[in-house]
This record gives sequence, structure tokens and C-alpha cells, in this order.
Amino acid sequence: MSQRIVIGVMGAGEGATAHDIAAAERLGELIAHEGWVVLTGGRDAGVMAAAVRGAKRIAGSITVGILPTESGEVAPGVDIPIYTGLGNARDAINVLSSRVVITCGNLSPGTTIEAAFAVKTGRPLILLNPNAEAEAFFKSARVARSPEEAIRLAQKFVGA
Amino acid sequence: MSQRIVIGVMGAGEGATAHDIAAAERLGELIAHEGWVVLTGGRDAGVMAAAVRGAKRIAGSITVGILPTESGEVAPGVDIPIYTGLGNARDAINVLSSRVVITCGNLSPGTTIEAAFAVKTGRPLILLNPNAEAEAFFKSARVARSPEEAIRLAQKFVGA
Amino acid sequence: MSQRIVIGVMGAGEGATAHDIAAAERLGELIAHEGWVVLTGGRDAGVMAAAVRGAKRIAGSITVGILPTESGEVAPGVDIPIYTGLGNARDAINVLSSRVVITCGNLSPGTTIEAAFAVKTGRPLILLNPNAEAEAFFKSARVARSPEEAIRLAQKFVGA
Amino acid sequence: MSQRIVIGVMGAGEGATAHDIAAAERLGELIAHEGWVVLTGGRDAGVMAAAVRGAKRIAGSITVGILPTESGEVAPGVDIPIYTGLGNARDAINVLSSRVVITCGNLSPGTTIEAAFAVKTGRPLILLNPNAEAEAFFKSARVARSPEEAIRLAQKFVGA
Repeated sequence: MSQRIVIGVMGAGEGATAHDIAAAERLGELIAHEGWVVLTGGRDAGVMAAAVRGAKRIAGSITVGILPTESGEVAPGVDIPIYTGLGNARDAINVLSSRVVITCGNLSPGTTIEAAFAVKTGRPLILLNPNAEAEAFFKSARVARSPEEAIRLAQKFVGA
Repeated sequence: MSQRIVIGVMGAGEGATAHDIAAAERLGELIAHEGWVVLTGGRDAGVMAAAVRGAKRIAGSITVGILPTESGEVAPGVDIPIYTGLGNARDAINVLSSRVVITCGNLSPGTTIEAAFAVKTGRPLILLNPNAEAEAFFKSARVARSPEEAIRLAQKFVGA
Repeated sequence: MSQRIVIGVMGAGEGATAHDIAAAERLGELIAHEGWVVLTGGRDAGVMAAAVRGAKRIAGSITVGILPTESGEVAPGVDIPIYTGLGNARDAINVLSSRVVITCGNLSPGTTIEAAFAVKTGRPLILLNPNAEAEAFFKSARVARSPEEAIRLAQKFVGA
Repeated sequence: MSQRIVIGVMGAGEGATAHDIAAAERLGELIAHEGWVVLTGGRDAGVMAAAVRGAKRIAGSITVGILPTESGEVAPGVDIPIYTGLGNARDAINVLSSRVVITCGNLSPGTTIEAAFAVKTGRPLILLNPNAEAEAFFKSARVARSPEEAIRLAQKFVGA
């Protein structure tokens, strides 16, 4: 069996802060360093693009992007673009294909969909630097205050 | 043009309270009384089934259920079952096909997906009797404390 | 139980012949005359638009359109637009939601997807005026040479 | 840019002949030998499983499986399972994510969906050892009589 461990990084395409972007980059790097595959929503924007950028700092890393479109734009560094043509409904695939789902920063509507989908389908959910309302709302999620802490939590879920 | 106004009623299949069920039934009845089509997730459970039941008290009402399955179970009273086979991803269709989205009761993970999807895609969102955390989290939503108040809000969104 | 019988009419949006258009209109009218709901791909084009137009000649008819988009364009006469945002993948829903699938005219690529989907998921498939290659390829389908013959075949499948 | 070239291999899960299985294995091996990623429907059955098995004979190969389910069964050798939960509608993603689509053996209903989807969305389509009816029906497709010939055709489409 050669099956790889896939970790999803979710966050705002537009409206991510510089702090969120930096955290996503670091998170992508740390995930790749573990030998895990980084999965994002694939677009060349915000947290998605940053996590891929971070992952590609590690030699031999693999990155997957699950795109809403039928073709076209993809973040630089995505090794394997999965074009769905499903629009916003592709969020379901992002979550289902991830062993652990990590959101990065304040929860945008799209990221909220993914977080709720993780809860509904039983994927472990880690909120990295969430806003207070999101933390209060997603009671069953684990909260991390740094990319390093998110990785430690993910390791437990993965059983590494 | 014969296009009908479709109003989506979303809520827990399992775990809905007796109060939520009663509110959903009344809500379905009021929507149908306006001449609007009631759209739900179609399953024979909880808020979904109750809204349909309420709607069918009104002669000439039309009810649509957007089902996660390829065939089979549907709530009694659903006139037009739309079988998607998409599993949980069908939540996107529930929202996109609704002129206004009304959630009923505490937000379950599935209902949270739908509420977030409404915000993301610009569908007006009304939370009927939400829990405090949901109200704090979905800041842009309108909150109603009774089915009657939800209908008055919906009328404004529909322009009726 | 108020569940309605839904019959899907599938065919080219662009590139339908005048003969196909006329047949689709007549087919829509005959389906509605049976008291059945006409379901199409919802777009304001070709066979889809024609079937809806025909159905609306019958008082009290109900028409459903399953659209590829998140909002916007819909054929005049569609009572209940179901917006999926799924692009071409919405073809699956057209088929799954139909008790019987009737294609109209030569099989375009989109209609071929729907015909194959019907075979795969066990929905009865009627080809009205297919090209010879399509008839040879879809061996398990029934072939009709007129809208009236298609309706007689559909009646048997529905058990009417 | 690290983007990999992804080639889709489509064919029957159940009902594939020994000849189809052998051809799919060889095809998977040859695709991986080119340095391309092998994409299949991911299930542990028929042509899908064989193509993955062939690919994994090549060191450093990468295989992707696009699964209809939310979790569970996947063919041994799939490095990156993409769980969609979309049932049969996931066929759209198989095609959209492939630079070139190669069907293997007689066209089952599922493979017909994929072939038609390739035509509709402009993905180059190669039929390896199709039945005569399929060859007559999919006029715009290229036909190959051996895995080696399929690869030569794919090379032209990829521009390699």
C-alpha cells in the first residue's frame, strides 16, 4: 500500500490577513515536512496559495488542489489539479479527501462550509487562529494558536 | 412567465426538538399560504418532514425535496422529489434553488453548511429560533422569533 | 401521498433541428396532458425550451428545470428552477429525478451522458428519433418514431 | 511550476475481460513510465485497479483515484484517494482532471458517460480496443489497438 496521508488546509481566498498568509505558508511547509500531502481549494489566492507555496519549499512534497472550475487558473506549485466544475459544491470534496482538516484564520463563508462539513462527516477539525465567534460556534473543533501546535494536534489524529 | 417563488426550509433531520418541529410545520403552512413553493432536503425526518407536512395543509401547495440519494425514501407530501445522488453535497442545491433560506431551530452541522452557503452565494438568510452561538456567528443573517415573523421578513426579501 | 410522476426530456440545447424542436414541443404537451411533470435541463435553448413550451399549453401543468448555473437564465415556462451550480455534472440529477428518460433527436454529447446515466442507474430510456449510431449503441433503450409512440412506451414504464 | 500531466484511464469496474485487464495494466505502466500521473475512478475493481497496479511497477509513479464514496474502499496502489461522496456524478471529475482520457475495452455505461463527457468538455479521447458500436458512435475519438499505440496518441495530445 502506498496510500499517502492527505491534510486539508482551508481558508479565505480573498480577505486573508498577512498574518493568516504567513501562518498558512508555515503550515504548508510543516505538513510537507511530515511527508504528508497538502490539499487545498487550489485557487491562486489567499490561504490556498500560501499553503501550497510553503509545501513546495520541501523537496519531494506533493500538493493537490481541488478546483471549482472545469479548467484554467490554479495556484503555482499545485502538482495535481483536480478540476471539478462543481463551483462552490467542491468544498465537500476538499473535506472528504482530507484525513484532517485545518482552517487558517477567521472563518470566511467558504471556510465555514468546510468546517461544518468536517463536523458532519467526522473529519477531525483544527481551527488555527480562529475568531472568537467561530471558536464558540464550532465547539467540537480543536483550536491551535500556531502552525506548530496545529501540526502536533494533526499528528495525534493521524496516529503518527 | 410562470416561475414560482421557492423558499427553502432547512433544519435538523435528527435531533430536532418538539418546538422546532412545531415551528417548521407552521412555517411550511405559512409559506404555502403565500403561494410560495416549499423546498426542503426531502428526507422523512425532523424539520424537513415537518415543513412539508405543514405546506400540504394548504390546497394547491407545491413541495420540492432535494434528496441526497439516487432513489428511495422521501418525506410524505413531497410533490416533486429531486434525486441527486450527491450525498451531503446536495446542500448546495437546496440553497441555490431557494429565493430565501430559512433555518429552523439550533443549527446542526448540515444546517450550518446551508447557512454558510447562503451567505457565500448571496441568498437572504433568516434564522428562526437559533441558538445564541449561531446568532453571534452568522452576523449578516436576520433572526426571527416566530414563524410569522420569519414570513414577514421573507416577504420583504421577495418583494411581496 | 401527493408525489407526482416526473418525466425527463433530454436533447440538444444548441444544434437541435426544427424537426427535433417540434417533436419536443409535442412531447412536452403530451406529458403534461397525462398529468405528469416535465423535467428538463432548464436552459432557454433547443429541446429543453421546446418541451417546456409544449407543456405549458396544458392548464395546470408543472415544469421543472435543473440548471447548470447558480442563478440566472431559465427557459420561459419553467415553474420550478432548480439551480445546481454543478455545471455539466448536473446531468446526473436530470436522470435520477426522472421516472422515465426520453431523449429527443440525435444524441449530442450532453444527451449521450444522460442516456448512459439512465442505463447505468436503471432508469427506463426511450430514444425518440435517434440517429442510427445511437440506436445501435444504446441497445437496451426503446426507440420511438413519434411523440405519441414515446408516450405509449412511457405509460407502460410508469404503469399507467 | 511543478504541475504534473494527469492521464485518465477509464473502463469497466465489473465485467472487464482478462484482455482488458491486461491492457489496462500495461497502459498504467506505460503512462507512469512517461512520468505522467495515472488517474482512475479509484475503486478496487476491473480496469481501474489494473491501471493502478501497472503504474506502481514504476518507481516514483503517482496514482490518483477519484472515488464515488465518502470514505472506505480504494484500489491498492492509489497514492492519493480523492473522496467525493458524489456517487456516479464523480465521473465528471475524472474527465475534467485528465489532460487526455483513455478508455479501455468495451464501453460500459459508466465509461460511456466519461467518453461523452470528454467530448462535451473538449478533453482528447482515445478508445483502446473499443467495440464496433462504440467506435461508430464516438466519431471524434481516436482509436488505438494496443497500449503502446494509445501512448503514442497521448504523447501527441500532450505535446511531448
